[in-house]
Amino acid sequence: MEQIMIQELKTILIENNKEYLNAFVSKFQHFDIAAMLSELEQGEQLMFISQVPIPLGAEILEYLEPELQYKILDRIKDDFTSGLVNEMSSDMIVNLLLSIHPHQAKKLMDFLPDDYRGKINTLMNYEPNTAGRLATVDYIAARINWTVDQTLHHIRKVGHEAEIVSYIYVLGSRGELVGVVSLKEIILARSGTKLGEFVQGNPISVPVDMHQEEVVEVLSNYDLVAIPVVAQDQRMIGIITVDDLIDVIHEEATEDFQKLGGSQPLDEPYFKNSVWSLFKKRIGWLLILFVAEAYTGSVLRHYEDTLSEQIALAFFVPLLIGTGGNTGSQTVTTLVRALAVGEIQFKDMFKVFRKEVSTGLCLGISMGSFALIRAFFLGVNVGTASVVAISALFIVIWASMVAAVLPMILHKLKMDPAVVSGPFITTLVDGTGLIIYFTMAKIILHL
Amino acid sequence: MEQIMIQELKTILIENNKEYLNAFVSKFQHFDIAAMLSELEQGEQLMFISQVPIPLGAEILEYLEPELQYKILDRIKDDFTSGLVNEMSSDMIVNLLLSIHPHQAKKLMDFLPDDYRGKINTLMNYEPNTAGRLATVDYIAARINWTVDQTLHHIRKVGHEAEIVSYIYVLGSRGELVGVVSLKEIILARSGTKLGEFVQGNPISVPVDMHQEEVVEVLSNYDLVAIPVVAQDQRMIGIITVDDLIDVIHEEATEDFQKLGGSQPLDEPYFKNSVWSLFKKRIGWLLILFVAEAYTGSVLRHYEDTLSEQIALAFFVPLLIGTGGNTGSQTVTTLVRALAVGEIQFKDMFKVFRKEVSTGLCLGISMGSFALIRAFFLGVNVGTASVVAISALFIVIWASMVAAVLPMILHKLKMDPAVVSGPFITTLVDGTGLIIYFTMAKIILHL
Repeated sequence: MEQIMIQELKTILIENNKEYLNAFVSKFQHFDIAAMLSELEQGEQLMFISQVPIPLGAEILEYLEPELQYKILDRIKDDFTSGLVNEMSSDMIVNLLLSIHPHQAKKLMDFLPDDYRGKINTLMNYEPNTAGRLATVDYIAARINWTVDQTLHHIRKVGHEAEIVSYIYVLGSRGELVGVVSLKEIILARSGTKLGEFVQGNPISVPVDMHQEEVVEVLSNYDLVAIPVVAQDQRMIGIITVDDLIDVIHEEATEDFQKLGGSQPLDEPYFKNSVWSLFKKRIGWLLILFVAEAYTGSVLRHYEDTLSEQIALAFFVPLLIGTGGNTGSQTVTTLVRALAVGEIQFKDMFKVFRKEVSTGLCLGISMGSFALIRAFFLGVNVGTASVVAISALFIVIWASMVAAVLPMILHKLKMDPAVVSGPFITTLVDGTGLIIYFTMAKIILHL
Repeated sequence: MEQIMIQELKTILIENNKEYLNAFVSKFQHFDIAAMLSELEQGEQLMFISQVPIPLGAEILEYLEPELQYKILDRIKDDFTSGLVNEMSSDMIVNLLLSIHPHQAKKLMDFLPDDYRGKINTLMNYEPNTAGRLATVDYIAARINWTVDQTLHHIRKVGHEAEIVSYIYVLGSRGELVGVVSLKEIILARSGTKLGEFVQGNPISVPVDMHQEEVVEVLSNYDLVAIPVVAQDQRMIGIITVDDLIDVIHEEATEDFQKLGGSQPLDEPYFKNSVWSLFKKRIGWLLILFVAEAYTGSVLRHYEDTLSEQIALAFFVPLLIGTGGNTGSQTVTTLVRALAVGEIQFKDMFKVFRKEVSTGLCLGISMGSFALIRAFFLGVNVGTASVVAISALFIVIWASMVAAVLPMILHKLKMDPAVVSGPFITTLVDGTGLIIYFTMAKIILHL
């Protein structure tokens, strides 16, 4: 069906009839039009953008990738480019300008009026992944001594450019944020009322340099649709809207997934990564884990005599260390995630430890029993079977302990707990698990 | 500092002075007051809720856990209970009623007026994790033939109860959703204009039975702050607000984390799970993986003679299968996440496969070289060292292949790709890796 729509759009573009085009476009959401647009040939894309009204064109452009935005803006007539960049929201402009070559960015910025260019320049200079970088300056501000009627008049005048009109940010004389009023409150207030009379003081805001992950936490705690960003002197810089933060939430979760899988996080969506970039992100941890795992070789060589005497012990090596690794991986992913969303904190360390060790004990007893059964089925002697079962018990408990403690400690040390990935804990438990296993063998089998 | 605030609040409650209390409360955000409230003794909580204005009390209650909401509502005077449940938003009421015992729910529902109780009952009957269950009926609807003035008058009348006033949902004669207008548009429109003249048709909406994960996708694609939910006949049921969906996003990501860690997802936040519940969620996969891993024992017993002849082969077993597992885990977590956020699809299967196998080849060559070095350091003969190095190469490539294909196939089969957890792929690669290793040994060492 979508292909049919694209064909229809292509035909309309050939006919070069603005009315048909606008009638067609009005049937769809901007996101869907953007999706169609990116399927068109370059010439058709330019024709499209030159034929729709500029505010609509700007809105559709915002849904495209920065590369495509630039290609279009660079190739259409100058007055369209100028109109479009001035209509696009400031956070989108910042994102676009930072994604292209500085020379190209310079060219586009020349289309902006001086004061707006200054604002954009400021936004671009904030550190990546901070509140400042996510902020848009397209919000509505009002002064505390205005009446609701003055404010409504102002909203009517500037509202077209704002991303969010449901909240109006009330500023003091130095431009400092003193409160927030909702459009609902302004509409519901009696005519003549001054904003100062009902403004909510102590508005929630975030400092420009706050990390985006913390901004997400603030926003989801307070259930806001937009959050103001302020400088050190409380001067208002801009707002961050919830739709941009949803992208941040996805991004941060994706990073944690990749870390927990034992890889450095990818900076770009999957397909934008070359084989070489995937290789670079993965080889580091693989090597570290390889070196850590290498000592299992030394442990096994150390027990070479035990092993030759009772070769059946070797049969259970992958099973035992695998089970230990699996237990550790279960605990570690659960805890790293719980730390990331704030469900647990360092002060809960003891509670977490007790819960995990108790769970580990139950799991250990179960896995020990199954290991015993498995050993009998493999036809080994009673001694070896008991060694396997008891080792399974202890390895599972040990894995639970290590996996419970490490993420908490890293969190306390302000390091990212997701460093303790599944592969990391598995590797750690492999070597130590072998020591447990062979120690049991030596004691029980008197080897 | 927070403790000081709680102390101050306790003192104010003892003084039993409403004015002091309201002055204190006005200094904080509702979320922060709720946090303090949950730290108070039960008696103090009841005193607090009975002394603040009911609309404020209802807003604060919404930030508490359902258990605590019920404890408070059950113990205060009936007219407070009645006032509060009527002020709370309908999605919160539904969440509360579903979290308590049906008898208790029945008691609370008696406080609601008949028509509202009917609506709540309908919302409660939708399946968990669907759009219907997340919906709230506290939205503003208008008729298509109203003027902007009539609409503003209506907003002034009912706006106090709405969760979102920035959008007004325009309904046809049968209550079917025909369009959406923003409050901004109503304010900006000339007096006397009818909604029909500027309403956006084809509004985005989701069907009541859509899964919450899909609702999130729609909402983030279209950058909305609220999304209308409609029945099969397009009749409007309610809206879902973005703040509730942020919780869903967190929830769904947490589930995927837990699955990827090789555990069934927990239904509740971490600390709400007993040891027994953690045990139940984990033992299933541990056992399945144990059974799958158990065949490594059979593989090793099969090669018992090879192993006794060349005991040094055993030294490298954990290192080789560990490295294979780590490679697989890196690939699988990256792909499962990319599938979950829609970055890759089944049709990309071949592209993904080629990328992963190429990356696996590079990683395999690197790891093979390091394995060779490690083997020399452990002082084994050249033959065994080559076996180890070549096995490392093939095991890494093999792990990449398996990890690239499995999540895609599960996704295609409409199964959750997160089932292919890190532990799952590790286990799978363990046994097959051993077969690769011993086959190489037989060929190269002529054992």
